[in-house]
Amino acid sequence: MTNSAPALISSLSPLIIDDAVARALREDLGDAGDITTAAVIPSDKTICATITSRQSGVIAGVDAAIAAFRLVDSTIKTEIKNGDGYRVQIGERILSIEGRARGVLSAERVALNFLGHLSGVATATAALVEAIKGCKAKIVCTRKTTPGLRALEKHAVLCGGGANHRFGLYDAVMIKDNHIAVAGGIIPALRAIKRTIGHMVKIEIEVDTLEQLETVLSEGVDVVLLDNMSTDDMAKAVTITKGRCVLEASGNVTLKTVSEIANTGVNVISSGWITHSAPCLDLGLDVQ
Amino acid sequence: MTNSAPALISSLSPLIIDDAVARALREDLGDAGDITTAAVIPSDKTICATITSRQSGVIAGVDAAIAAFRLVDSTIKTEIKNGDGYRVQIGERILSIEGRARGVLSAERVALNFLGHLSGVATATAALVEAIKGCKAKIVCTRKTTPGLRALEKHAVLCGGGANHRFGLYDAVMIKDNHIAVAGGIIPALRAIKRTIGHMVKIEIEVDTLEQLETVLSEGVDVVLLDNMSTDDMAKAVTITKGRCVLEASGNVTLKTVSEIANTGVNVISSGWITHSAPCLDLGLDVQ
Amino acid sequence: MTNSAPALISSLSPLIIDDAVARALREDLGDAGDITTAAVIPSDKTICATITSRQSGVIAGVDAAIAAFRLVDSTIKTEIKNGDGYRVQIGERILSIEGRARGVLSAERVALNFLGHLSGVATATAALVEAIKGCKAKIVCTRKTTPGLRALEKHAVLCGGGANHRFGLYDAVMIKDNHIAVAGGIIPALRAIKRTIGHMVKIEIEVDTLEQLETVLSEGVDVVLLDNMSTDDMAKAVTITKGRCVLEASGNVTLKTVSEIANTGVNVISSGWITHSAPCLDLGLDVQ
Amino acid sequence: MTNSAPALISSLSPLIIDDAVARALREDLGDAGDITTAAVIPSDKTICATITSRQSGVIAGVDAAIAAFRLVDSTIKTEIKNGDGYRVQIGERILSIEGRARGVLSAERVALNFLGHLSGVATATAALVEAIKGCKAKIVCTRKTTPGLRALEKHAVLCGGGANHRFGLYDAVMIKDNHIAVAGGIIPALRAIKRTIGHMVKIEIEVDTLEQLETVLSEGVDVVLLDNMSTDDMAKAVTITKGRCVLEASGNVTLKTVSEIANTGVNVISSGWITHSAPCLDLGLDVQ
Amino acid sequence: MTNSAPALISSLSPLIIDDAVARALREDLGDAGDITTAAVIPSDKTICATITSRQSGVIAGVDAAIAAFRLVDSTIKTEIKNGDGYRVQIGERILSIEGRARGVLSAERVALNFLGHLSGVATATAALVEAIKGCKAKIVCTRKTTPGLRALEKHAVLCGGGANHRFGLYDAVMIKDNHIAVAGGIIPALRAIKRTIGHMVKIEIEVDTLEQLETVLSEGVDVVLLDNMSTDDMAKAVTITKGRCVLEASGNVTLKTVSEIANTGVNVISSGWITHSAPCLDLGLDVQ
Amino acid sequence: MTNSAPALISSLSPLIIDDAVARALREDLGDAGDITTAAVIPSDKTICATITSRQSGVIAGVDAAIAAFRLVDSTIKTEIKNGDGYRVQIGERILSIEGRARGVLSAERVALNFLGHLSGVATATAALVEAIKGCKAKIVCTRKTTPGLRALEKHAVLCGGGANHRFGLYDAVMIKDNHIAVAGGIIPALRAIKRTIGHMVKIEIEVDTLEQLETVLSEGVDVVLLDNMSTDDMAKAVTITKGRCVLEASGNVTLKTVSEIANTGVNVISSGWITHSAPCLDLGLDVQ
Repeated sequence: MTNSAPALISSLSPLIIDDAVARALREDLGDAGDITTAAVIPSDKTICATITSRQSGVIAGVDAAIAAFRLVDSTIKTEIKNGDGYRVQIGERILSIEGRARGVLSAERVALNFLGHLSGVATATAALVEAIKGCKAKIVCTRKTTPGLRALEKHAVLCGGGANHRFGLYDAVMIKDNHIAVAGGIIPALRAIKRTIGHMVKIEIEVDTLEQLETVLSEGVDVVLLDNMSTDDMAKAVTITKGRCVLEASGNVTLKTVSEIANTGVNVISSGWITHSAPCLDLGLDVQ
Repeated sequence: MTNSAPALISSLSPLIIDDAVARALREDLGDAGDITTAAVIPSDKTICATITSRQSGVIAGVDAAIAAFRLVDSTIKTEIKNGDGYRVQIGERILSIEGRARGVLSAERVALNFLGHLSGVATATAALVEAIKGCKAKIVCTRKTTPGLRALEKHAVLCGGGANHRFGLYDAVMIKDNHIAVAGGIIPALRAIKRTIGHMVKIEIEVDTLEQLETVLSEGVDVVLLDNMSTDDMAKAVTITKGRCVLEASGNVTLKTVSEIANTGVNVISSGWITHSAPCLDLGLDVQ
Repeated sequence: MTNSAPALISSLSPLIIDDAVARALREDLGDAGDITTAAVIPSDKTICATITSRQSGVIAGVDAAIAAFRLVDSTIKTEIKNGDGYRVQIGERILSIEGRARGVLSAERVALNFLGHLSGVATATAALVEAIKGCKAKIVCTRKTTPGLRALEKHAVLCGGGANHRFGLYDAVMIKDNHIAVAGGIIPALRAIKRTIGHMVKIEIEVDTLEQLETVLSEGVDVVLLDNMSTDDMAKAVTITKGRCVLEASGNVTLKTVSEIANTGVNVISSGWITHSAPCLDLGLDVQ
Repeated sequence: MTNSAPALISSLSPLIIDDAVARALREDLGDAGDITTAAVIPSDKTICATITSRQSGVIAGVDAAIAAFRLVDSTIKTEIKNGDGYRVQIGERILSIEGRARGVLSAERVALNFLGHLSGVATATAALVEAIKGCKAKIVCTRKTTPGLRALEKHAVLCGGGANHRFGLYDAVMIKDNHIAVAGGIIPALRAIKRTIGHMVKIEIEVDTLEQLETVLSEGVDVVLLDNMSTDDMAKAVTITKGRCVLEASGNVTLKTVSEIANTGVNVISSGWITHSAPCLDLGLDVQ
Repeated sequence: MTNSAPALISSLSPLIIDDAVARALREDLGDAGDITTAAVIPSDKTICATITSRQSGVIAGVDAAIAAFRLVDSTIKTEIKNGDGYRVQIGERILSIEGRARGVLSAERVALNFLGHLSGVATATAALVEAIKGCKAKIVCTRKTTPGLRALEKHAVLCGGGANHRFGLYDAVMIKDNHIAVAGGIIPALRAIKRTIGHMVKIEIEVDTLEQLETVLSEGVDVVLLDNMSTDDMAKAVTITKGRCVLEASGNVTLKTVSEIANTGVNVISSGWITHSAPCLDLGLDVQ
Repeated sequence: MTNSAPALISSLSPLIIDDAVARALREDLGDAGDITTAAVIPSDKTICATITSRQSGVIAGVDAAIAAFRLVDSTIKTEIKNGDGYRVQIGERILSIEGRARGVLSAERVALNFLGHLSGVATATAALVEAIKGCKAKIVCTRKTTPGLRALEKHAVLCGGGANHRFGLYDAVMIKDNHIAVAGGIIPALRAIKRTIGHMVKIEIEVDTLEQLETVLSEGVDVVLLDNMSTDDMAKAVTITKGRCVLEASGNVTLKTVSEIANTGVNVISSGWITHSAPCLDLGLDVQ
């Protein structure tokens, strides 16, 4: 990843962004609104402000920050200095804002909360991506996302150079240990799926052992999740599979372990940490 | 904090919980629903399951987890084993669930996402609280919360033994540096507030120096935020203030620094980290 | 209050206004819309109209009236002639409207319903404020508001020269007789609150007798509500309190009694009447 | 009207009631909920309470009050003592409530706000109905209702013995002076309507003079609104009309004037006052 | 009906259109958005496109199609070539669109789904209207509409030259066989209605036989529904009724039978088929 | 398909059903509710009723019908006689209902509108499925669905024996002619997708000619859409493809043509007609 923003392929819709941001604004403004600003700041006072980064990291969520200012006061003007996907250094500008001071200050916290959280996700993703540079494996996120923010966090993962796993229970099949147990084994579970699932849906199944992998490969499947396997077994799985399906490694993926995992030759490495535990990127809004 | 759950004083309403959980379920189920479970699990199959902790920490969000199962299938029965505020050890049970397998498995991830995230917030709070044991200072959260989850995170902070700062821009006055700059100084800002604000609203003002503190004390205010002061200056601020207002310390609050800050004698220590960057608590659902 | 609008300190957010107005428009337009106007008025006919007052009073809610026209037809132009807080005389103009006749006539009733109701609240408030002119006491509203319109009515109270009490159950503590009875007395109730409540929340307690007041003062509290006390007892309460807390008078507050109450020296007089029973201000829209 | 509740014909749907009550509860509980009750009242404490009237009047809105308790705590039990349409005396019981004290106290204000407001509308309506006892005229409400509460207020008017005018712009035609002016007269306006309007929609037109009435009668119409006419002219209108349409009197309808208006022989008397300016009925919740 | 669009009298509100279209867009875009377009089409690529008809028919729903493009990308420009009510031939243009390719392609399907469905309803209506050309009877729709789209389908019926029956259970009385059975006959049912119903509400009653018709006429009613009568009986009903009420024919209304029904002299012919079973009009969007 | 209901694999969530049904109920009940029933039917009258079919067809949407009765009156009891996927004959029972007459009659139309529409979709699907009996091809639906009802219609297609294509723009890639044109050809379009799309997303591309098919096969893709090809070319496509991808036939699919198309050996046949133009199944509710 270079220092300039990549050509993003995200398709996050403005309907999704505005809905999430309006919800957060209602949460922060309540019924009484910003009572401090209304009492202290004249209604016609205008200001210029800039959001800058106080940490290095990767930016995500600029459109949400812009929406916060726009939804509070539609006359506020914003200009993106370094947008989603940009690898920012300490002190670099992300967004400039100009307009009535009341609106700028009232929207500030919501704008920063989105931008800080999503840039945190992007930065954590980028750290894993960086750690496996040169390997063919992709870093992907999971369904372990913050409730209510999945679409935005999936977008932030793309900003960080990662890729997306399925978005929910609805857009791909994932047969896990509990499904296999209830269904009476891997073969009955896979056959039940294939009898009914549509032709546009990919099928993934979780295996714990190389024996299970062989069974799965004999039935045919799109993706196999190697759950908490040793890297030795992962390497064997790659050898056994011979490209007959995509291999996804999962479990105990950290900045320390990810490179060793990637070197086994798996295609995809999934991490819950990048969405459920990524620390916020430290940003600030400065009035000029 | 003992190992048994404290008598919580949280007043989180079921309207808030159900709204947040329904939103998260729609996000995970989409239009097509849980296509894997529908294909693999017979509709009349029932199971018993337990949510247990794979880490030690403090629990928060059990009501949200229960809501996830109830909203997916109102016939599922749940029983709290160790509820909000409980200091859980590895392997201890939090919630048992019994009912149709389809509903249990479809709601699992949303239930765990809430419980893991909120228990993460409670656990981070408890760590700060533990670190200043014996001091009179309270640990409080800020408005740096995850968009859409503020009410739930504020509740989680209580579960961890912390206290709540204001909930939003609407329920208390906080005069910050930008307000002071636009208003033309601390005195004009404070007087503008006092002219107009209601008698049920507390007033807090941010100061950077001891000189500003003296000015503020001469005007009278409920709470003063000591922003990024050295602990030496905090201690002097305590001496100067003589209990005339509540003193809140803010900035650079970490597990390493918090004890030294508390020892200055400040009344309140606020931390954004406990809500915006607390790592998720690792939990799992096991089918019996 | 002079005849010109005061510099209002209201922080009512456009998100709140638009939500309430859109709801009222859906209520009035239903699925079929304005069937009379559609049949009688050509779609390209434009008109100028003015909202004027047919009574003297104080204006509140002009932004809601403007929102009604804008949400029905975003091309309609409005100009405020005399806005929120203005003390209007019979026949004076409040708002001029210009645009397509269909939109103007379809939005008329919703615009007038908001403006008439909220100006009624402001006018009732101003009457109480006027009646205690020269006294230090403030007139404040209560939680006895019209369901769904609290934020707008609280704003109208400010327009009438009053101040706001707490907005709901969430932003301040108010310990009432039922709480005291269940808690086992004033002292246990107050101590339970102080053990748990955050540092940004004010505490008010209701007392019926001077003995209770003395107990409360010895414990310390922000505000005491003197509930249905005689004005003699109120005056004694002022003497006893010596400024140690804010004293609020409540019960039997009318245009006839309010001056005598204010003369006791209490700080705050609260009235449910100004929000739950204020008659509508009579306004009309005239097409030119 | 006797002292027992009439067999009401209202068709108010539970979907409408729950939506309005949930909105009011969110307004009162905010994000933090009832912070006083949570701190003072043990979670397992139960109480019995009764809502009684402190004024005589006519009850409306009991279902909304019940919904307030149910939506806050679904285990609370309520029993109607004297329901919608009942003419209550001072001190009589309306509703008894039994359940957890926290829920009862948290829902109290919202329950009383609905019941007080709607009973106020019913009581005002009943006063007008009583004043014209023996006349054939019906008292009806208008579209001058409180924004967001139209369906509930229309129901309250029925409880008070009145009848409903159209619910909105969508369910009946009402040609007013502005429509007539733009259309170029009464005849073009009426013919435009008749060309296009459906066979299930009634048509009303407003007239200011007896000459206009004759024109309207020659064209044929369902209802004629006599706008601000003298009672002499109203009586003449009745004579002229000979039952060819329904005659509705409007303007300056008060408790003093309504009997004289009814004696002219008009069929319907409409009043905005009963919905937009009816004072709240004074009710209280007492814990036993 | 000529080939040019009639001056429509529809009063469909933009609030209704935008709500329905936003719902459909969320349905099609989900959380991930248009993943194909985002990957293949550069964000700054602009295109011109045209919606044309691949069948002859009558257009309805152009405003919904426009809303689809606007809500996805507010910078897209549209121009109506042949709007609602226009009788289109194969290959004729309806709407031209110009703007960013991503937005145009992402909104295309939702725009066409509304336009095709509603034009299908208009076209089916127009076919019935055409079939009874020269008769006085009007073609009207029923409550047998597609769930969620009633307001839009009622509008489409007007576009096709038909008229609207009641919009729902709320805006007119319709006494059906089940009501009559429970009420104990036609006379008790009609009298119950007349005792309570407002003066702005029309009353219709369903009859199966000419004897029932005579009973109804003796009581007086606005509209009588002749349910599944033979055309012979319908003609007799017309003779019996002598214009004392509106006669509506219902049941077995098809393109083959409608002319014979109209020739009986009934006033109104209602058809569920035009809303619940009208085939979609085939339209396409072509990029230039 | 036998006459008994198949074990359905649908995963339609109750959240989706209740949302759509509540929306339709609000549409039918409006603010005034069912004014006929309220006036004619005593509130305590109970009835038994049955929904039966007046046509043969395949049932879908019974859960939506049940939800309509439950949401209007939660005490109404329902029992499924022949549920989703059942091939019903004229006069056969689908659902029995028992409870208060007001609720049953008020919910009747909404229940029938869902059940009739969705059973219409299932019946149309079953007709195509029946027509290709013995062939391996599956009948699938498209995104040409009724706005707001996609999830329910996709479910109805499963009830009719069909399968689902992608649910929206978000869950699978479909590269159409316009994408290819803008991207500069099939190869650049496919490569752009493969560079960025996640490993859980299937990729389909539309081709018009056999040359295009060969290009696509050389690049590799999951599914190829043969758009409006002759059946001769389809057969050649099958031969060329040799199972290297799924082949989907689209365009001009009717009851007459579908068998010939299926006989070409394609895997999937997609039809917009089954969702956008399926006639309603004729059902009725009879009171016993």
